[in-house]
Amino acid sequence: MINYVYYMAKNKREYREVSMNEAKYAHRRSTVNVQFKDASGKAIADTDIKVKQTGHEFLFGCGAFDFLPATDGKEMFVDRTEKWLDLFNYGTLPFYWGQFEKKEGEPRTELLMKAAKLMREHGAIPKGHPLCWHTECADWLMEYDNKTILSKQLDRINRDVSDFKGVIDIWDVINEVVIMPVYDRYDNAITRICKDLGRVKLVKEVFDAAKAANPDAVLLINDFNLSESYRILIDGCLNAGVPISAIGIQTHQHQGYMGREKLEDILDRYSFFGLPIHFTENTLVSGKIMPPEIVDLNDYQVDEWPSTPEGEERQKKEWREMYEILFAHPLVEAVTGWDFADGAWLKAPSGLIREDGTLKPSYHELKKLIHEEWTTELIVHTDADGKAEINGYRGQYSASGNNISGSFDVKKDKNTDVCILK
Amino acid sequence: MINYVYYMAKNKREYREVSMNEAKYAHRRSTVNVQFKDASGKAIADTDIKVKQTGHEFLFGCGAFDFLPATDGKEMFVDRTEKWLDLFNYGTLPFYWGQFEKKEGEPRTELLMKAAKLMREHGAIPKGHPLCWHTECADWLMEYDNKTILSKQLDRINRDVSDFKGVIDIWDVINEVVIMPVYDRYDNAITRICKDLGRVKLVKEVFDAAKAANPDAVLLINDFNLSESYRILIDGCLNAGVPISAIGIQTHQHQGYMGREKLEDILDRYSFFGLPIHFTENTLVSGKIMPPEIVDLNDYQVDEWPSTPEGEERQKKEWREMYEILFAHPLVEAVTGWDFADGAWLKAPSGLIREDGTLKPSYHELKKLIHEEWTTELIVHTDADGKAEINGYRGQYSASGNNISGSFDVKKDKNTDVCILK
Repeated sequence: MINYVYYMAKNKREYREVSMNEAKYAHRRSTVNVQFKDASGKAIADTDIKVKQTGHEFLFGCGAFDFLPATDGKEMFVDRTEKWLDLFNYGTLPFYWGQFEKKEGEPRTELLMKAAKLMREHGAIPKGHPLCWHTECADWLMEYDNKTILSKQLDRINRDVSDFKGVIDIWDVINEVVIMPVYDRYDNAITRICKDLGRVKLVKEVFDAAKAANPDAVLLINDFNLSESYRILIDGCLNAGVPISAIGIQTHQHQGYMGREKLEDILDRYSFFGLPIHFTENTLVSGKIMPPEIVDLNDYQVDEWPSTPEGEERQKKEWREMYEILFAHPLVEAVTGWDFADGAWLKAPSGLIREDGTLKPSYHELKKLIHEEWTTELIVHTDADGKAEINGYRGQYSASGNNISGSFDVKKDKNTDVCILK
Repeated sequence: MINYVYYMAKNKREYREVSMNEAKYAHRRSTVNVQFKDASGKAIADTDIKVKQTGHEFLFGCGAFDFLPATDGKEMFVDRTEKWLDLFNYGTLPFYWGQFEKKEGEPRTELLMKAAKLMREHGAIPKGHPLCWHTECADWLMEYDNKTILSKQLDRINRDVSDFKGVIDIWDVINEVVIMPVYDRYDNAITRICKDLGRVKLVKEVFDAAKAANPDAVLLINDFNLSESYRILIDGCLNAGVPISAIGIQTHQHQGYMGREKLEDILDRYSFFGLPIHFTENTLVSGKIMPPEIVDLNDYQVDEWPSTPEGEERQKKEWREMYEILFAHPLVEAVTGWDFADGAWLKAPSGLIREDGTLKPSYHELKKLIHEEWTTELIVHTDADGKAEINGYRGQYSASGNNISGSFDVKKDKNTDVCILK
């Protein structure tokens, strides 16, 4: 919770936000000395300015698959995406090759571009997921020999990363490499080439292709296997010169919340590389917990998997604890829930809204965290030069005073700014 | 078993060895056209020559720790090493830093050099084990900061690999890297620097140091963790340019023989790299099997662990099967048993001889395999130019006829040879 403390200092009043969380989340905050001016360029001196954060640097994300049908204005999905946008500023769009290009040469670039731009229009940042994966892969690839498959994989990366440059600049480049060459549930083109090239060489090829197509993009490796195998893989890739921008960590906790100790162990171990960490795919269910003996989550097939009141309370508490732990860790830059609504993957009650569109306790809880507790809102009093020092969570801000308003940013390496109110 | 088949062909007699194993082990054999001459240089034409293999290209190995006390002529150890030499051509010598240099600056180079040369004098090839390991490490290293520890580790490698060059040209450069940075049984200098550098960087540093000191040496990475983690580690190291010559695989099977299926799975998975594979440390016990719930074998501490008659029969069969599987695999170049005599590591009945020095059934079985079934012995008949074609297991050969004798080699890429009998 945020407390406003009123100081009397000399002849001027000064409002300061004092958050109980200031120390814990200090790494998320910066201080900027803003000079407020009116449209004529005159400093707005000795005035109360109301300052409110309107956007976050931190990526609060969720699966954004519903933006695809929302582009057609389908009511249910328009409603869902509005609720989505009230909460999040970052979302994952599906680029599974088997769906994206069901028939060779016919990618659904247009639909994805519309969905990505729809997100952008509402201030949300889209991520493409994934460019290379053995699952949900295009079947037609298997007609080719391995050399051709690799070449088509690299062409696909070049095409899609180039096409979406400027709209999508964050990519899960490769997904689940630890299991990739030993995956034996069914034959697929990517396991074939991974067996041939080995993991590190394939990772290098696909990252090099993505980097060439968009040198400024944030390029992720992503996995659900959080054992030492994945650490060793990343270690090998980095030493082999793979341009990994951030480490993707999946936690699909259908079998129960992992808890603080395990989460902190993951953070400790993956901090080694000093790279940003994205919690890319996270699930917490608000119903029955999946039995522990299930190894591949996809093996758990049920007719229905209802959300329960107790489950929703549990899910709410778990999401809060998990968010607090992750937001407190300096290397974490993104946390992305997986299903926005219940009943998607595995029919699980894994969403923040129910199937009927009603909001679950976890939705309200995340909204409180993101848009109240971790959002800066304060009144500053400008000095004789129209200047005031503002310390807050990094991101975009609105400012208003004397019935005029403007905007500015709080950034890490920007100590001063000018804000025009008009 | 080897069968001699007698052919009648035209006017000349020709003996040929036909082994039932010819196809299975064809990759171990080569054909060489040898011209036999007498001391004056005259071809020994139209003559029966008895040809017998005296040495193997394949490395049949065992722990050779007993050669250290044998250098002093200690009777028990002289007896043991004689039995050892009757069986093996390759042995592992201990270079554990904590033993090798108990006090900083006082390495026991002289003792190890004597032991290595003793082996060489009897035609056995020594291997040094290991140059870097978190276990059995020198305690005095922990007094230094991490930068100094690394520097001393590299100096140690440079010193020992240089000192033994020409005597020991095969090294286990680094041991058990998969567990190294997460090893938490006790603090040690190597876990500290592995945590700092990461696995791949440390592996690269130590291999580069060994390679610089002896560019022609065979340099091994070695591990007991045969999961995908080790494959990923090797993959990363090779892509990062680490000069690994051969992959070391440990199989300490105190908890029971792994069996054909698992062994072939290991061979399949580690063949990916196309590098030679050394089975560096192998244990099969001839007594009670260690309970499966033990995770770190060192936790199993018993007062005595007797060898039993049934256990010795089992051990014999398991060794034969394992040797046959490994010898049949084209990438395997070395198989090294661990304890030569019972009662060493963990007091296990893991040897080929008993504590009292008597030979166990597994000793006789390996001798039959190495020195009979996989040893070529035949009679060839030379043509008018003194030439005869010899196909046999690669290695060193003696030849005799007309009461004079000589020697030659059967090698992979040498199709012709001249052998002088005198």
